[in-house]
Amino acid sequence: MQVFDKGFHHHHHQSPSSPLLSHFFSFFHTKRKKRVEMAIEIEQPRVGLSKVAVSKTHGEDSPYFAGWKAYDENPYHETSNQSGVIQMGLAENQVSFDLLEKYLEEHSEASSWGKGAPGFRENALFQDYHGLKSFRQAMASFMEQIRGGRAKFDPDRIVLTAGATAANELLTFILADPGDALLIPTPYYPGFDRDLRWRTGVNIVPIHCDSSNNFQITPEAMEAAYQTAESMNLKVRGILITNPSNPLGATIQRSALEQILDFAVNKNIHLVSDEIYSGSTFSSSEFISIAEILETRGYKEAERVHIVYSLSKDLGLPGFRVGTIYSYNDQVVTTARRMSSFTLISSQTQHLLACMLSNKEFSENYIKTNRERLSKRYDMIIKGLKKAGIECLKGNAGLFCWMNLSPLLEKPTRESELALWKVILNEVKLNISPGSSCHCSEPGWFRVCFANMSEQTLEIALERIHKFMEQRKRN
Amino acid sequence: MQVFDKGFHHHHHQSPSSPLLSHFFSFFHTKRKKRVEMAIEIEQPRVGLSKVAVSKTHGEDSPYFAGWKAYDENPYHETSNQSGVIQMGLAENQVSFDLLEKYLEEHSEASSWGKGAPGFRENALFQDYHGLKSFRQAMASFMEQIRGGRAKFDPDRIVLTAGATAANELLTFILADPGDALLIPTPYYPGFDRDLRWRTGVNIVPIHCDSSNNFQITPEAMEAAYQTAESMNLKVRGILITNPSNPLGATIQRSALEQILDFAVNKNIHLVSDEIYSGSTFSSSEFISIAEILETRGYKEAERVHIVYSLSKDLGLPGFRVGTIYSYNDQVVTTARRMSSFTLISSQTQHLLACMLSNKEFSENYIKTNRERLSKRYDMIIKGLKKAGIECLKGNAGLFCWMNLSPLLEKPTRESELALWKVILNEVKLNISPGSSCHCSEPGWFRVCFANMSEQTLEIALERIHKFMEQRKRN
Repeated sequence: MQVFDKGFHHHHHQSPSSPLLSHFFSFFHTKRKKRVEMAIEIEQPRVGLSKVAVSKTHGEDSPYFAGWKAYDENPYHETSNQSGVIQMGLAENQVSFDLLEKYLEEHSEASSWGKGAPGFRENALFQDYHGLKSFRQAMASFMEQIRGGRAKFDPDRIVLTAGATAANELLTFILADPGDALLIPTPYYPGFDRDLRWRTGVNIVPIHCDSSNNFQITPEAMEAAYQTAESMNLKVRGILITNPSNPLGATIQRSALEQILDFAVNKNIHLVSDEIYSGSTFSSSEFISIAEILETRGYKEAERVHIVYSLSKDLGLPGFRVGTIYSYNDQVVTTARRMSSFTLISSQTQHLLACMLSNKEFSENYIKTNRERLSKRYDMIIKGLKKAGIECLKGNAGLFCWMNLSPLLEKPTRESELALWKVILNEVKLNISPGSSCHCSEPGWFRVCFANMSEQTLEIALERIHKFMEQRKRN
Repeated sequence: MQVFDKGFHHHHHQSPSSPLLSHFFSFFHTKRKKRVEMAIEIEQPRVGLSKVAVSKTHGEDSPYFAGWKAYDENPYHETSNQSGVIQMGLAENQVSFDLLEKYLEEHSEASSWGKGAPGFRENALFQDYHGLKSFRQAMASFMEQIRGGRAKFDPDRIVLTAGATAANELLTFILADPGDALLIPTPYYPGFDRDLRWRTGVNIVPIHCDSSNNFQITPEAMEAAYQTAESMNLKVRGILITNPSNPLGATIQRSALEQILDFAVNKNIHLVSDEIYSGSTFSSSEFISIAEILETRGYKEAERVHIVYSLSKDLGLPGFRVGTIYSYNDQVVTTARRMSSFTLISSQTQHLLACMLSNKEFSENYIKTNRERLSKRYDMIIKGLKKAGIECLKGNAGLFCWMNLSPLLEKPTRESELALWKVILNEVKLNISPGSSCHCSEPGWFRVCFANMSEQTLEIALERIHKFMEQRKRN
């Protein structure tokens, strides 16, 4: 019962060791037992698996995922299970689905094979790893719209992958050898432990950020991480940032981006900018893409810069598995495209989204309305938490806020943080994500998602928190 | 302009170094040149890529792919380019599209979001790496139907991947460590060089098969390959077979399957059976799945057996990227499912195919009709070639035949085979695949595809071959 908010999302209750699965293996096990009882047949050696298969670097055994299990076992429902756990650990965007549904109602050609649409035949056979040209064009244009036209994207540099999960792994395969290191600012998305390390054999060396400067990345912190890697004899091949940051829910400032790029240039390493929440910034002007920085610098340092994007968050379509890599490096584009053979997007889905995103009226309205709704949700949760006496990092993007409960910790330790988290999960009945699961070096911070539920449910969650804080005050 | 018939299929004419792509980089290059001219600014060191990125183990530089380029540059068209190259190097199934189209016309609920279908919302959010239960059930049932009900499949052992390309790579990651070896009978699908070796670092050691016994796999050949691996200090972790074989177009006999399984048991290694052409066997009774062998043996050796399947060939849907791994090994199922995060199938496509395949009337008729049509095509090409004086390996499956042109070789060498291939490509204007690209150890064999074109085009191809052979006789 292990779950990632990106790449895996648990809707069903099955695991390979669950009863559901083993009607077949019960026979198998009986056989083996029988052989032992008879003590005649020699037990066959079990066939071995690879180191990757038995390793735990996928990170799915982290305490982070225990919260999912608790939610799965007792999910809140507004009428049938009012005392259940409210899922606030899932970075899912459900606030703008009505806009997508309206588009689909009015544009049946996007999802069917009627006249005007390309034939089923042609679409079903299309497996060119370049992807549908119409879709790449629509993606490039959508990415430009999100950035308010302040950056340009060439559709021929867009490499398509089945989700950002694959995009990040694929880039790691291309940029680093097994045993090498990538530097990543903390706190970071827990799934990176799987995406960047598991099959690639690459190490993550954290760049520690903390609340003293609102978790912004500094040259000193980058240099310290670089020195740590060197002292471990790890070759640093790149730095990976998420902008806007998951879990911080905040964009990276222009000056910080300039420093990060300078750092990458000075160390002669790559810079990967994961911008999957760029369309979820509450105001267009507040998000500065690394692509914009390159524009101002005349693309001088572009060959080391690679952008990851996805439609899972901004458009709320994680099931459709649409990720992209945008690289300014010719060889990376060629190699990534070749590698995307392992993770192509269904041509049916490319066709649907090419229609949808190339409709400017739809896409412009969607981006604008989605921003407004997320912003409203954000204000609602921030106000509610403030009323309960809780402060958050000032955010301006994403589907979550970064909540400071450090005043509530018994001691400033990971253990205290997890103890508090368990109380909130089991007593307050809210599943939120402890900062330690995001490798945050400062205990007491939690990621709280607000876009995967109705406003009513969010209100109930806030009421629960308020009540909890009142109780704490009384005791 | 590199192409694989599985995993990549070239419909468009672009490459990252093509003019199409570099409007942007022309600026970039000018910049660099200018700096050199000025001789002031210090040339920045180029940022390096990984060994995987710069390696050639993806195999796309093989002469095999030159034929694709020739086809792309001058494709045959029945009215507008009658002297163009006919593409016979593409294992694509176009003979039964009308059945799929008819189903879609009659069942609009499968591809739209109307009443009765699950809502768009629910589907778009579904990214559970178990996949849609309805789809796994439909896949298990379809796989049973193809095997005439002689094997059972548990839907909870089905792991979904975006195509068989990903399924084969994923299994290799799980079964072998970098530097280890998999044994594969030759001739084999050229894409395996990429799928099994490139990112995994695993080696392929060929099991040499030849025409003396119709290219069947023998215990002696397997043992010889095993010894070769040992002499190279490579640890053998498994044997991978394709059944029916690509490029042979023939199924593996029961006795050979028994021997292969015994070999895997005796060496305590894995057995991967790639059965992506199982539904393209001309008669259901002629295909014996490794699953059937396990049934007769009471699943005793099941934990080392893994089956790969896909809808790209049998259903002709490569663009939809639907692959599966069926493993009898609990740990492999768990790990593969977790790993499938990197290569999930669009939930939109899962929904469409769940509807289609769970319709028994459709699926039974499809399997039957598709077999008949492929069989008819096969007879047509075999008869045509025979008339031209060319013999083929006796086949009973697939979208191609294995043609023996060894009598035409100047010398029994790879060089002579490629020289003949060039004549056929450039003068006869047919793109067929030389056996050497499939690592065949016996020169003079070619794979000829027959299901990716109309009967009329196939007739023209046969006429060209006939004329070519007549000319050869006269000279």
